[in-house]
Amino acid sequence: MINVGILGSTGYAGQQLVWLLTNHSNANIVFLSSHSYEGDLYSDIYKNYYGFNKNICINIQEAECKLNSIDVLFIALPHGKSFDITKKALEKGVKVIDLGADFRIKSKATYEQWYGLDHQCSELLEDSVYGLPELKRESIKNASLIANPGCYPTASILALAPLLKAKIVDPKSIIIDAKSGVSGAGRNAAIPNIYTECNESIKAYSVASHRHTPEIEQELSHLLGSDLTLVFTPHLVPMNRGILSVCYANLTIDMSQEELYKLYDEFYKDEFFVKVTEDMPETKYVKGSNMCHIGLRLDKRTGKVIVCSAIDNLMKGAAGQAIQNMNIMFGIDEKTGLNFPAMLP
Amino acid sequence: MINVGILGSTGYAGQQLVWLLTNHSNANIVFLSSHSYEGDLYSDIYKNYYGFNKNICINIQEAECKLNSIDVLFIALPHGKSFDITKKALEKGVKVIDLGADFRIKSKATYEQWYGLDHQCSELLEDSVYGLPELKRESIKNASLIANPGCYPTASILALAPLLKAKIVDPKSIIIDAKSGVSGAGRNAAIPNIYTECNESIKAYSVASHRHTPEIEQELSHLLGSDLTLVFTPHLVPMNRGILSVCYANLTIDMSQEELYKLYDEFYKDEFFVKVTEDMPETKYVKGSNMCHIGLRLDKRTGKVIVCSAIDNLMKGAAGQAIQNMNIMFGIDEKTGLNFPAMLP
Amino acid sequence: MINVGILGSTGYAGQQLVWLLTNHSNANIVFLSSHSYEGDLYSDIYKNYYGFNKNICINIQEAECKLNSIDVLFIALPHGKSFDITKKALEKGVKVIDLGADFRIKSKATYEQWYGLDHQCSELLEDSVYGLPELKRESIKNASLIANPGCYPTASILALAPLLKAKIVDPKSIIIDAKSGVSGAGRNAAIPNIYTECNESIKAYSVASHRHTPEIEQELSHLLGSDLTLVFTPHLVPMNRGILSVCYANLTIDMSQEELYKLYDEFYKDEFFVKVTEDMPETKYVKGSNMCHIGLRLDKRTGKVIVCSAIDNLMKGAAGQAIQNMNIMFGIDEKTGLNFPAMLP
Amino acid sequence: MINVGILGSTGYAGQQLVWLLTNHSNANIVFLSSHSYEGDLYSDIYKNYYGFNKNICINIQEAECKLNSIDVLFIALPHGKSFDITKKALEKGVKVIDLGADFRIKSKATYEQWYGLDHQCSELLEDSVYGLPELKRESIKNASLIANPGCYPTASILALAPLLKAKIVDPKSIIIDAKSGVSGAGRNAAIPNIYTECNESIKAYSVASHRHTPEIEQELSHLLGSDLTLVFTPHLVPMNRGILSVCYANLTIDMSQEELYKLYDEFYKDEFFVKVTEDMPETKYVKGSNMCHIGLRLDKRTGKVIVCSAIDNLMKGAAGQAIQNMNIMFGIDEKTGLNFPAMLP
Repeated sequence: MINVGILGSTGYAGQQLVWLLTNHSNANIVFLSSHSYEGDLYSDIYKNYYGFNKNICINIQEAECKLNSIDVLFIALPHGKSFDITKKALEKGVKVIDLGADFRIKSKATYEQWYGLDHQCSELLEDSVYGLPELKRESIKNASLIANPGCYPTASILALAPLLKAKIVDPKSIIIDAKSGVSGAGRNAAIPNIYTECNESIKAYSVASHRHTPEIEQELSHLLGSDLTLVFTPHLVPMNRGILSVCYANLTIDMSQEELYKLYDEFYKDEFFVKVTEDMPETKYVKGSNMCHIGLRLDKRTGKVIVCSAIDNLMKGAAGQAIQNMNIMFGIDEKTGLNFPAMLP
Repeated sequence: MINVGILGSTGYAGQQLVWLLTNHSNANIVFLSSHSYEGDLYSDIYKNYYGFNKNICINIQEAECKLNSIDVLFIALPHGKSFDITKKALEKGVKVIDLGADFRIKSKATYEQWYGLDHQCSELLEDSVYGLPELKRESIKNASLIANPGCYPTASILALAPLLKAKIVDPKSIIIDAKSGVSGAGRNAAIPNIYTECNESIKAYSVASHRHTPEIEQELSHLLGSDLTLVFTPHLVPMNRGILSVCYANLTIDMSQEELYKLYDEFYKDEFFVKVTEDMPETKYVKGSNMCHIGLRLDKRTGKVIVCSAIDNLMKGAAGQAIQNMNIMFGIDEKTGLNFPAMLP
Repeated sequence: MINVGILGSTGYAGQQLVWLLTNHSNANIVFLSSHSYEGDLYSDIYKNYYGFNKNICINIQEAECKLNSIDVLFIALPHGKSFDITKKALEKGVKVIDLGADFRIKSKATYEQWYGLDHQCSELLEDSVYGLPELKRESIKNASLIANPGCYPTASILALAPLLKAKIVDPKSIIIDAKSGVSGAGRNAAIPNIYTECNESIKAYSVASHRHTPEIEQELSHLLGSDLTLVFTPHLVPMNRGILSVCYANLTIDMSQEELYKLYDEFYKDEFFVKVTEDMPETKYVKGSNMCHIGLRLDKRTGKVIVCSAIDNLMKGAAGQAIQNMNIMFGIDEKTGLNFPAMLP
Repeated sequence: MINVGILGSTGYAGQQLVWLLTNHSNANIVFLSSHSYEGDLYSDIYKNYYGFNKNICINIQEAECKLNSIDVLFIALPHGKSFDITKKALEKGVKVIDLGADFRIKSKATYEQWYGLDHQCSELLEDSVYGLPELKRESIKNASLIANPGCYPTASILALAPLLKAKIVDPKSIIIDAKSGVSGAGRNAAIPNIYTECNESIKAYSVASHRHTPEIEQELSHLLGSDLTLVFTPHLVPMNRGILSVCYANLTIDMSQEELYKLYDEFYKDEFFVKVTEDMPETKYVKGSNMCHIGLRLDKRTGKVIVCSAIDNLMKGAAGQAIQNMNIMFGIDEKTGLNFPAMLP
């Protein structure tokens, strides 16, 4: 059994981790920590756990004292909050999977510019691994510190990777128009998040300034072999879960839609969690699962390719992918605890 | 392995069965039949099954030919459609779990009055078992034919059973005001079911005339030991899943709320799938799970007790309970394939 | 022109008043006050008012200084906050329409018991008028202080009034099971109000303890001519607007459903805003309007009558009714500014 | 009074026309026709009209006989159904406002290619006016036949017009990523439209093939003075109403965001129904109104401008704009019957 601790267990990503670990045959929850609910029974906060979970939330200091009893620490804290505990955990030989943004950006300067705070562990950046298994599986196997990808980056990078790897699109032409369910805004009591403000409306937000932009650019630049910049526009959609990432790029060679499909099929042929689909994807078909569906169309009239990917932001976009990374790091079947489809309707 | 066939696999209850069986460690899907989608790949209808299910939907005649290769047949057809195939399956020694209404009402006359058609298998009614495990577990163990309870009856009977068993309420005073998500209306292309007609609205329907009324009355009468009639009012609520059943009755003895809680705790103390909760339940805490949450309040000013139960209409209210019945019938752990909490949010 | 001031203009009821007054041919907004947004442009808070409203929110002290320039003051503040300003306004001859609860309950003791605070203006209770025009139109005409009814009481009293006036139901048997959209919870940043917590779920709340209970009981007791107590159960439904109030009572005389309909038709025959409908009502058909739809069924099997009323909680349940009261108080056509149906879908 | 007839009055656009005309001070509904509900009371189909509308739906033949009694005919029929009646109405001197697509595309060949049917009235195309008042007000004044713009084109053309008129973007770079509420799919009983299939999901549809593409291209080409092609991607969002159109283009000159805002402010400075807003728009702020909100951002890193417009698809995107056109054609205040903001929440 893999012994597990979770920091930030009462946020939505943390709670999704608890759900997945509750049903995971090879893992055991040792502690759940929470800043807001210290001392509370976990099943009093999330009442779906009546009969399933008896943990009482501890604080981060208590969690620190229990590092010796765990094999892996999941961190689901706001950015800037994971530096200290990550160092301590790694020193004790505990593997760390950080669901936050602190170890995703390899350039200290870029991190500090977009996140507006000093990076206090830049020495760890070199060895940290960007935990997108479909692209980095080998590095993940031996990593001690995983920077679990952001939700929008997961969907967007998986959608665009085959094109950039094949170098068949103009990197200056890339536009990502992505749409997320409201759980992406977190479990956060603020007026813009209340039901009556979100319901029956859609908006774009953080236009030309969202923090996931440099993360997507970094990973796509790696694939391409040279630096690129792109436009990324996130939206808030009135639904609980799901991300649809619609990506546009100018094709630089003559290719049919059929050939593009072949490229994608080949690229993802061994991946259980990525399915290239004839139809354009809908988020409901991946909701609550770790799956990513990708569809594409070639617009012959304009020479642009349109790639559309769908994930569940809390699963493949956060906790599901974190479990996938844990499975790889501990050498067990990558699908353990994740081998189920979306539940409809 | 238990070999399984499903009739009506493309309705919402049928699809929920497919989901549960896909993840069930002791069961194996042999065939899926569908009237509307004969010849289609199941994963082309429900695209969440890409990579999980390779069945092609067969018709009911083909299903009939495969009865020899299954141990249990799930029937998720409209009422009146299961008589013939049930007889044939039972003759071949195949156990039958009918998710429809055809074998729930023990009185042929009552069935015919409320459902408006002749019962063509009334000879099977005596041996069929009403599959509510918390009340009928022993009979289910040896049953060949299970009448899987309706969604509203499951929630309502579980809410009221302790009161009626204890004979502490006036049976003439019972009112059930129940609210269901839209999946309860089925996967049915009709104007009242379209998004823009259901969204942002609530209505009561089939007031004083819903077909689940005699089913609830039958089972509560059994518990009480004498016939009762009650008021049952169903509502349609703009959400996919969930039933909240709020039940009112006049208490006939002097009792405190605490004593009422003790009665309920005692009644359900050995039941994994029923939790008596201090708070009044919310459907989200059981959504996608086989759990039933029950809360109650004594209104001292009026002498009425208010009991509130929450289930997922497609799980404990249909497919989840059907799997629970299958597990009991085949002597395996009742929780197999159902041992997970609601996924939030 | 009627000159108008609004206290609490940035809550949902206050905002609905602004909307209605913007389109009202005989009224003129003099000031909008807001505790939370003092100094802000109203159209920066509610951006739907770009091009329609140039007010800057003032605080309550500034509002007090402007009492001389208005004819009527609408108060949409939390209970307990309107005592002082109401006295000052009345002293200056300004009519007051209070959308809060402070002047609805005629008994000081009952108010203090249910609201948990001292009533500081009980001397005004005798002359204040409960502003339900369909029952109190004559008193409203000459009132200086209107206690605008609560949302649940408006729906519930209109549903039950004909039965109680006719004295044909057992007053001990009355149960009101009411369902409200989330705007009923106000514009309030709290975890239970955020989108992901409300969406895809229904719950009952304040069971056997909601503060609208004594208000409903007071008005129905007046109609009946003697005191009654009843059960009132409110629910939160995932939609922005609307209340459906389903009321149950035992009929004490022999009557057909047809005769009951005649009773209702007769009772409301001159009322523009109340329609007795053959079908059971749906909240969408009154959403955004000042209409109340009422339908009913007699359940012959149990001798119970089931009356169902639908209103928009922010319109007939708050701001719409407040405007209706203003129109009556100022002797203009009661329908002014309210003469439009629900907008669908 | 302007005497009005409506063909297709029971679809969502038709019903929105009825709502607007019910409240219009200068118009009078003479007849409502409906293919599906011939002979039915309008208020039995749309129960919000109880007390507001006493029309019985007539069929198209009866409507034809009443052309003499109306001044203007609104046609809200599927494409291909309006040719014949349009000719007849125009011959009798009745003005026609067609909410469908049949007279929007000036090129017969383009229409036939995208809509897949013969155009039977191409002789009317020259004199028909594309009814987007902000761009064509003078032509609308004297028109007999208005082709009322599509919902997506209205939002997209208003968003991009200032850029193309100013010729400061590369026409080959234009991408429109638009999102619509479900009422855009019509009142149509089909499985993909039912609540449980649309709710909690987002999808792109008709990617690189939607029929609104040539309409947008035609109007933007006019503004630019030369032909352009562009990418247009529509999406379905789980909400009743609203379109958000997010438009991307490469800026070809050096300009600041401030200067871009000035360009837009200047372009729309006399337009009541178009507001250029500092914040990026949200559909809720225009829902139920005839307003269009436009916001924009310059992404300096990529040289791309991102313009975002929000409308209500049934109002400014259909019936509201049709009434605006009627007002202009009949020489009355353009805002008549449309002078109200969105109702929140």
